[in-house]
Amino acid sequence: MISRSEILSTLSQYNESDIKIGTLCSHSSLQIFHGARREGIPSVGIVLKENKPYYESFTNALPEMFLEVQDYKEIMTDNFQKKLISENVIIIPHGSLVEYIGAENLLERFRVPMFGNRLTLYWESDRRRQRRWLKEAGVNSPTIYENPSNIDKPVIVKLHGAKGGRGYFKASNSQEFFTKFNELRMRKLISSLDDIIIEEFIAGVRYYPHFFLSILEEKNLPGLDEGRLELLGIDRRLEVIDEIHRGLPLIIEDYLDYTVTGNVGVVVREKYLVDLLRYAVRIVSSARKLFYPGLIGPFCLETIYNPARGFIVFEVSARIVAGTNLYPDGSPYSTYYYDEPMSMGRRIAKEIRRAVNLNSLHKLVY
Amino acid sequence: MISRSEILSTLSQYNESDIKIGTLCSHSSLQIFHGARREGIPSVGIVLKENKPYYESFTNALPEMFLEVQDYKEIMTDNFQKKLISENVIIIPHGSLVEYIGAENLLERFRVPMFGNRLTLYWESDRRRQRRWLKEAGVNSPTIYENPSNIDKPVIVKLHGAKGGRGYFKASNSQEFFTKFNELRMRKLISSLDDIIIEEFIAGVRYYPHFFLSILEEKNLPGLDEGRLELLGIDRRLEVIDEIHRGLPLIIEDYLDYTVTGNVGVVVREKYLVDLLRYAVRIVSSARKLFYPGLIGPFCLETIYNPARGFIVFEVSARIVAGTNLYPDGSPYSTYYYDEPMSMGRRIAKEIRRAVNLNSLHKLVY
Amino acid sequence: MISRSEILSTLSQYNESDIKIGTLCSHSSLQIFHGARREGIPSVGIVLKENKPYYESFTNALPEMFLEVQDYKEIMTDNFQKKLISENVIIIPHGSLVEYIGAENLLERFRVPMFGNRLTLYWESDRRRQRRWLKEAGVNSPTIYENPSNIDKPVIVKLHGAKGGRGYFKASNSQEFFTKFNELRMRKLISSLDDIIIEEFIAGVRYYPHFFLSILEEKNLPGLDEGRLELLGIDRRLEVIDEIHRGLPLIIEDYLDYTVTGNVGVVVREKYLVDLLRYAVRIVSSARKLFYPGLIGPFCLETIYNPARGFIVFEVSARIVAGTNLYPDGSPYSTYYYDEPMSMGRRIAKEIRRAVNLNSLHKLVY
Repeated sequence: MISRSEILSTLSQYNESDIKIGTLCSHSSLQIFHGARREGIPSVGIVLKENKPYYESFTNALPEMFLEVQDYKEIMTDNFQKKLISENVIIIPHGSLVEYIGAENLLERFRVPMFGNRLTLYWESDRRRQRRWLKEAGVNSPTIYENPSNIDKPVIVKLHGAKGGRGYFKASNSQEFFTKFNELRMRKLISSLDDIIIEEFIAGVRYYPHFFLSILEEKNLPGLDEGRLELLGIDRRLEVIDEIHRGLPLIIEDYLDYTVTGNVGVVVREKYLVDLLRYAVRIVSSARKLFYPGLIGPFCLETIYNPARGFIVFEVSARIVAGTNLYPDGSPYSTYYYDEPMSMGRRIAKEIRRAVNLNSLHKLVY
Repeated sequence: MISRSEILSTLSQYNESDIKIGTLCSHSSLQIFHGARREGIPSVGIVLKENKPYYESFTNALPEMFLEVQDYKEIMTDNFQKKLISENVIIIPHGSLVEYIGAENLLERFRVPMFGNRLTLYWESDRRRQRRWLKEAGVNSPTIYENPSNIDKPVIVKLHGAKGGRGYFKASNSQEFFTKFNELRMRKLISSLDDIIIEEFIAGVRYYPHFFLSILEEKNLPGLDEGRLELLGIDRRLEVIDEIHRGLPLIIEDYLDYTVTGNVGVVVREKYLVDLLRYAVRIVSSARKLFYPGLIGPFCLETIYNPARGFIVFEVSARIVAGTNLYPDGSPYSTYYYDEPMSMGRRIAKEIRRAVNLNSLHKLVY
Repeated sequence: MISRSEILSTLSQYNESDIKIGTLCSHSSLQIFHGARREGIPSVGIVLKENKPYYESFTNALPEMFLEVQDYKEIMTDNFQKKLISENVIIIPHGSLVEYIGAENLLERFRVPMFGNRLTLYWESDRRRQRRWLKEAGVNSPTIYENPSNIDKPVIVKLHGAKGGRGYFKASNSQEFFTKFNELRMRKLISSLDDIIIEEFIAGVRYYPHFFLSILEEKNLPGLDEGRLELLGIDRRLEVIDEIHRGLPLIIEDYLDYTVTGNVGVVVREKYLVDLLRYAVRIVSSARKLFYPGLIGPFCLETIYNPARGFIVFEVSARIVAGTNLYPDGSPYSTYYYDEPMSMGRRIAKEIRRAVNLNSLHKLVY
């Protein structure tokens, strides 16, 4: 794994008066470029050749510079990394970067300074490690069944690395589990129990709150070791299964499809905000213990509200999530912190600008 | 019941140059504080000790003063009420205030001036009285069955005082009703027919329009006796049942869960706006007849649009509703009245400020 | 059909220093008036007498002039058309105008200049012609079955001219089709196969992106012959069927109800934006070939995203759609083009204003 000191040594050669924000032209990049412009920081868009004209057409979210690639994997080459470094680029990681390049490549072979703590990639990329993080935080999370024979209530079975949620299935007991599991095995979608995770199925309403932790600001909530925690928005993903009612009974007989296709904005009952902030603090604290300095910048809790059990966290995303794309001009929550329209993309740029002014960029980067 | 003259006598001792807006830190309070700040009116947040740091963290929606309590019931004490009165506080009632303190307590024993007409609490708190209000208004509303043996079409059975909708159930006929009713009785969730209301089930799409009636402004719609009626937003509640498709057939076999957990913003076909405004005018007029001066300030119609029957009103909320939390910076409708971002919270503050200027605060308070 | 040259001859007599934007007070008119005000163009609202006070109450979206009618059909009279022409009115067509007046009336007998290309009415009004347009564009679209005996997968059967989607039904095979078809025929809802269209049922998530094509601006995307294409927002319609889960199994046994009642705002995964823009370019290009100069101004693609097949376009609306009513102050996409809050209504007014300045109004009108 590339060490933090190696990255900080690279960063120390950056010309801080010409710092640029860079990312792949995908996922949440329009928001990132748009936010960077509003904060007056130049940005660099790494773009597939065939996508460039489309990104150029968003004239108010235009990066100052495009770097064209034929394939995103090119960014792993020495030359490309050197180019990014010579342009003083801080990479903002997002879901597509991780998907296209791979967590291992980023951890082991990507030498360009990234915003946030690169170690989160290690802790997120494996569901069992992520589970340990949730347990350490002491937040409610679904029971995981290591042994399918122990299934004693409805479960949802997730495939490791399933892009966007395809092939997930539900089972009410061991017998149903094995029937479906064997069918997927016959279809070569999985080969062994190692390819899946068996999670208690939680009925309830999904809320995905987007947080930002600024370690440049003063501590603002009990339980934090340092930093200011902000809730900048909440979304709900729009998955294929959410249109299931339009195909009943056509779709329901088949395997469920949780492919994420977009997002819808929501607000939660105000009394639940305190619960969500408390949970976020715990996640921040346990991250700090497990992989110091823990979370930096944006993260998202993927929760289900169950009336009997409260919020249950089934995943943490330790970076900007696509749900923030709902709010390039701010959200119903960001307005409680900022008078300006504050997107997550802009919040990141603001943090980088402030770090440069405070001579503290090294605190935000790995 | 505390008389209006007693409240107005208290109000007459207020220092009008130092009026403050006060409410419990819950429900829609962030929007209320945020709106008050934008209108330049100081506010007071009555907050549970353990919640205070969380409310302090919303720096752009900060009340000027917090009053800590261990339990919301404390606000009923003589001392607390005196404190509020000495600070010239006008209380903005919201759903959590009514839930935690109780309509009867507010009507009989809470001597602090409240924004709006306190009598609405009496007319709303009992479903049968509320039904009379809807009938008097002449708006479409669901049939109520006093005798379960008369059930001749699908019904939804609601529990009185069910917090947020848990335990509601549907029945297609008398027999199904009695089976489910008896089961709930066995589970001690209800004890007699007096605990429930049997309402015709209406299929259709829910729309919850948020209105504000300003009696300081000139009449703007036919049928109004006085005042200007504004439509400031529309939402749809996000209830547990709305995620039922994700748990099918797990959840559907059980009793339905209408617990409100949050809200989603919607717009309605423009041609329906006229229908909604007409209905709102009728609700305003009948309120004025039944409990003069009737509605003042914010209210919400809880409607279902059924293609065959049009809008059907199943409830009125005579105060700020949580759905307005979607729109702290204004809604797709508020922009048709105001150039500034106008939330319901801000609209209330604006009305109070204007009343102070016009020396008319007594018109808005009971 | 009224020729374009006749319309342009009428336009040539307009006083361009006093151009007004006119439309029926319905559908998306508040947004159109509101947008016109922001661009400083006077507007004219053609309003049903009984609706006028309601439209007058939206004080920030007030047209400069109302023209009252008892029935929208009055606008077809000679006198009314002359009045509109004498006021230098450019009519902005929307769904209610087409519904109330009829495509044929507009094409054959309405002599007032309209914004956009009137020929789109001809190409949209018949589902088979529209299908040809989609085919010509080479975008994925659902299979159409001319012969019900050929049904080999689930289909959705749509009634021609069904207002808002009532009476649509699904069938899994020919036998089910004929059973339901005969039942509707017994109920006199349809009389023959000519009244319906049998479309392959596509499971997936609906996205309705709203585009604007400005032929006054420079070409901004590959594949365009001319003009700048902007994505100004995305919505999802809220149809009666979308609340089906609240009435299960009550509603599902009956015919499905796709009546559109309102809209919800959504964003789509950023990687899909390129797909949507590509599709829009193809639709623009084929329109130009089929009915020169093709699309001008606002249009909407009605798509379903299916994980296996990508976006499938099932309809084009060649004018401002009601989903844009979500965004009178701009959308999560319009902000990537404009710093000002840019609604579709405002975008139209901006285009007209610019055309007047460039002396190019004739390019936008038919």
